[in-house]
Amino acid sequence: MKKRIGIVGAGAAGLHLGLYLRQHDIDVTVYTDRKPDDYSDLRLLNTVAHHAVTVQREEALGVNEWPSDQYGYFGHYYYVGTPQPMQFYGDLKEPSRAVDYRMYLPMLMRALEARGGKFSYDTVTADDLEALSEQYDLLVVCTGKFALGQLFDKQPENSPFEKPQRALCVGLFKGIKESQIRAVTMSFSPGQGELIEIPTLSFNGMVTALVLENHIGGDLEILANTKYDDDPQAFLSLLLDKLRKHHPSVAERIDPDEFDLANGSLDILQGGVVPVYRNGHAQLRNGRTIIGLGDVQATVDPVLGQGANMASYAAWVLGEEIVAQSVYDQRFCEHLERRRQDRVTCATRWTNFTLTALSQLPPAFVQFLQVLSQSREMADEFTDNFNYPERQWDYFSSPERIGNWCNKFAPDVAA
Amino acid sequence: MKKRIGIVGAGAAGLHLGLYLRQHDIDVTVYTDRKPDDYSDLRLLNTVAHHAVTVQREEALGVNEWPSDQYGYFGHYYYVGTPQPMQFYGDLKEPSRAVDYRMYLPMLMRALEARGGKFSYDTVTADDLEALSEQYDLLVVCTGKFALGQLFDKQPENSPFEKPQRALCVGLFKGIKESQIRAVTMSFSPGQGELIEIPTLSFNGMVTALVLENHIGGDLEILANTKYDDDPQAFLSLLLDKLRKHHPSVAERIDPDEFDLANGSLDILQGGVVPVYRNGHAQLRNGRTIIGLGDVQATVDPVLGQGANMASYAAWVLGEEIVAQSVYDQRFCEHLERRRQDRVTCATRWTNFTLTALSQLPPAFVQFLQVLSQSREMADEFTDNFNYPERQWDYFSSPERIGNWCNKFAPDVAA
Repeated sequence: MKKRIGIVGAGAAGLHLGLYLRQHDIDVTVYTDRKPDDYSDLRLLNTVAHHAVTVQREEALGVNEWPSDQYGYFGHYYYVGTPQPMQFYGDLKEPSRAVDYRMYLPMLMRALEARGGKFSYDTVTADDLEALSEQYDLLVVCTGKFALGQLFDKQPENSPFEKPQRALCVGLFKGIKESQIRAVTMSFSPGQGELIEIPTLSFNGMVTALVLENHIGGDLEILANTKYDDDPQAFLSLLLDKLRKHHPSVAERIDPDEFDLANGSLDILQGGVVPVYRNGHAQLRNGRTIIGLGDVQATVDPVLGQGANMASYAAWVLGEEIVAQSVYDQRFCEHLERRRQDRVTCATRWTNFTLTALSQLPPAFVQFLQVLSQSREMADEFTDNFNYPERQWDYFSSPERIGNWCNKFAPDVAA
Repeated sequence: MKKRIGIVGAGAAGLHLGLYLRQHDIDVTVYTDRKPDDYSDLRLLNTVAHHAVTVQREEALGVNEWPSDQYGYFGHYYYVGTPQPMQFYGDLKEPSRAVDYRMYLPMLMRALEARGGKFSYDTVTADDLEALSEQYDLLVVCTGKFALGQLFDKQPENSPFEKPQRALCVGLFKGIKESQIRAVTMSFSPGQGELIEIPTLSFNGMVTALVLENHIGGDLEILANTKYDDDPQAFLSLLLDKLRKHHPSVAERIDPDEFDLANGSLDILQGGVVPVYRNGHAQLRNGRTIIGLGDVQATVDPVLGQGANMASYAAWVLGEEIVAQSVYDQRFCEHLERRRQDRVTCATRWTNFTLTALSQLPPAFVQFLQVLSQSREMADEFTDNFNYPERQWDYFSSPERIGNWCNKFAPDVAA
């Protein structure tokens, strides 16, 4: 008898899982309140880069619709706005690629449907889960909507923050010239905020995502609170002014005459993210075990672009374990967590650490930035490790480890 | 600069670790209160079978002194003394091998010393650890003597028992004819106890270890309390009588005229083991992290022969992580535990589960024994999985899992 898996939520995690399971002839039903055709009229959902490890999974799932050699980017430019600015570059070994999720998610949904995945366009709330769980061998929850996230206990040791750490202003723009190499730019304005610029494929072709991570109480916070729709020109003029002041390596590539939202007024998203890490599984009152996946398990600030990548990784591992095992109980969860946990916790910790380090600039982190700016080899490693957050955490988890890493490249720097 | 590792305790765990580290040119000092020449005069230390996975590590460490094709055994005979006795056999894919630790441990010590390992013949107590830890990059504790075990917190969820579950009587004997295939015999006398018979190499060549796991309060408990030295003939006669009554498949191979301890009166050990599972690492007051290995981390009853095998496995993993990493902190412990934990906890849980299941004989376990007795393929798998306790736990961790496993082999049984 075919295994039957229910998936609540149709983000990257749920859809990658569904596609994996269909490749293994497992019966899949996805519950979501949005149809594929709904997406093109939505406000920007997020700004997400898929690193090579994720693109490789898309390739294996047969959904690498926008190949990285054509739509991807090849490294990171770094700009640190210290009194003596630091500017440097690091390569990705294989390109990353960002696509507007208003195009990406419906593409995945249509692919899954074409391969026999079923969709139920219902709203699912926490009250529905017991009944739903009894229709499937396993129920996987990958949306936190309608209080579903709260079914999974928060892990305090991995959830250091109670509120957003940045006032976010995120948009898709035109009128920004590409850098010499098509790459992300990470611009750090000490005390004020970070800007992540991401070459992104959207409805009108390649555009520029600007992820403004503004420090709360700082000069840039106003960008999260000023509405484009109230006065588009005023907003763009304010933004350009702030970019020139705090993020000059991006501002210098902007043509003021062309600078605007890329597709229209829905291309901007403002607000904040409360980072949270939850247990990856829970038991319902009827005794059934449910699995939390993606944002439900770990919600991270977008500053390091880890959310979708770790969700896709966890979905793949979950898919493998669903195929390999046949009883979905506590022991199943042990196997699952042992395999997915390190990447997901390390992506979370590294992101949370970076938010604090970029706000407070402790000496060990400043020394790290200085050595990084001087050693191309180290910058390449740091950049490619956006694929492997657990390796980043091996370096960042203590001042001694950061120090050892810096010392390894000190000869380069001294030379 | 060479890494320097201190190892407190010279059992299989500490010595396998030391040998691994010397293969990687790491400086090793072992602290023990026994010299190699002391061992031949000691009372029997234990009865330990090394499964093929452990023998493979010995081969890799260059200490496979007694090859399994010559000294090993090839499977398990099972005898279940139900009203209609069940008798069956399962093969090991590769032989296991048991050697008297009074020969085995000094062999390892001499090998380690010959390869540059240092030995310090001192007594180490908990009070010495802070000072000692500062002499090494990492201190590994693999003896629970002198309150060292208590430095590591007990995990209540993995430590279900407060006292020994069996009254043990363990000895090396002569006068027992080998089975048709040289093999372990596991004899279960419902309500009374288990007997594990292990072909073992000792000072006088191949002898027979009898591990009598007597239920407390039962007819066999007296064997743990009657002293051989008080009256050897009376003891042997009592033992033979009890074996004939409760473990006939072993008793029938005994020649009463030859039956005696194999080397002399030190070949017997009586008492009990309190199973305990502790955290695998701890922090000293000076901030240094220490690692617990082997019996310090997990002490199991000998009924399933898991202790030394899981200790050797954990030692190997620890060796690999010491070589791969250079900061021995909390993050180091995460990597270590993620890799060793499943085998060590599953060996512990499977052993503790089996102690209870053999005492209480719940229906799912009786059904398991019945199917096992009828399916050679299942008996082979169960037998070879003594190498892989995590696979056993995949089968035994819930009645549903045991049921599924039995159902898989039901067609064999019905045929």
